[in-house]
Amino acid sequence: MSAGRLYGVGLGPGDPGLVTLRAAEVIRSAEVIAYPARPGEPSFARSIAAGLIPAGVEEIVMDVPMTPARGPAQAAYDTGAARIAEVLAAGRDVVCLCEGDPFFYGSFMYLHARLSARFAVEVVPGVTSVSAASARAGRPLSARNERVAVLPGPLSDGELRARISEAESVAIMKLGRHLGRIRAVLAGMGLLERALYIERATLAQERILPLAEAPDPAPYFSLILLTKGEDPWL
Amino acid sequence: MSAGRLYGVGLGPGDPGLVTLRAAEVIRSAEVIAYPARPGEPSFARSIAAGLIPAGVEEIVMDVPMTPARGPAQAAYDTGAARIAEVLAAGRDVVCLCEGDPFFYGSFMYLHARLSARFAVEVVPGVTSVSAASARAGRPLSARNERVAVLPGPLSDGELRARISEAESVAIMKLGRHLGRIRAVLAGMGLLERALYIERATLAQERILPLAEAPDPAPYFSLILLTKGEDPWL
Repeated sequence: MSAGRLYGVGLGPGDPGLVTLRAAEVIRSAEVIAYPARPGEPSFARSIAAGLIPAGVEEIVMDVPMTPARGPAQAAYDTGAARIAEVLAAGRDVVCLCEGDPFFYGSFMYLHARLSARFAVEVVPGVTSVSAASARAGRPLSARNERVAVLPGPLSDGELRARISEAESVAIMKLGRHLGRIRAVLAGMGLLERALYIERATLAQERILPLAEAPDPAPYFSLILLTKGEDPWL
Repeated sequence: MSAGRLYGVGLGPGDPGLVTLRAAEVIRSAEVIAYPARPGEPSFARSIAAGLIPAGVEEIVMDVPMTPARGPAQAAYDTGAARIAEVLAAGRDVVCLCEGDPFFYGSFMYLHARLSARFAVEVVPGVTSVSAASARAGRPLSARNERVAVLPGPLSDGELRARISEAESVAIMKLGRHLGRIRAVLAGMGLLERALYIERATLAQERILPLAEAPDPAPYFSLILLTKGEDPWL
């Protein structure tokens, strides 16, 4: 008996319409799905795919705590990977549901790291929240020889300032309690007017605001989009 | 009579399976499509969408010359935008086909710049070649507080060196005749071993090679992927 295959399926930013045809096909034929969830909360990835998941599918839920320390989350991926490995070893495929793109700040890479040496893996890339935010805000990210930087919000003020100054377009992720500090950095650089705050892009609850009006702290599914390049590229 | 709507539809990196459900829906119901092509060559965007395009659709082909000077290409977008504006003004929708993501080094932004003040626009984001290359190579782009830089190949050696040194993951686009020079920059930084060359990701002709073995010059649909971050993120 040959082992099953592990699928890491990107589901895009939230609108079920932004799932790819290949992702939909893989999910519709799934017998076992796996996804992370914060303990006691519904899984965002599962909610995007809900209309595609077959009845009677077996579900492996990985309860991943959001703690500053890495240990508890990594222990949850150890446990999840072990369960998934049992299913794969028994010859059944496992479809892991991933919001956004599996390899772009996605938790799938923790499973990939634990399982890809032993099992066949197919990664189905997805639309990132950065592309979605750019599309929804009507702000092109990059043209010609422009540079794009994607930066996590927890970086230091000095690091943010340096990286922002050296790119035409910048997406800042993982805002949370860092939002006020990042806003002050951008204001100090004279860039506040060009920065947008985008929350839950493509979902019904989507909000697009000037960064000056963004909530502080920011919810998890939000980002800042800063475009400094030439416009309108005529 | 109300004006039509302009759609900028991202088609992903090349595999028709990586078109989103929303993009497929928009294309299937199109009456008029538009896309750029290099004079005398088939359109890559149109080839990705071919299986979705309804019979009898009206096609607006924008012949965009690839010249170092911007003038000829921008004149082609002027002409294309004028034709599209006529159709929109007559109350019909126009679906513009875009390889990858429309706002990520995509030509759609030139139409957006010319038409978005006068007509309603919907941008359907797509899977980028960067996500596709990362997925196909099995190389996660970013986790935790890692920084991602997307850089065009024509940047100077010094600029490339600085930006590469300040990000955990780097995608270098638009390689062409710059490939040998970029390879020398990476070799000088001791990073050649970690760099992959990926050509036509997700297509039948896909090639994934160590950068040391990449063709010089490189064809248009290729990129370099460099991942320096922690691995395997355990």
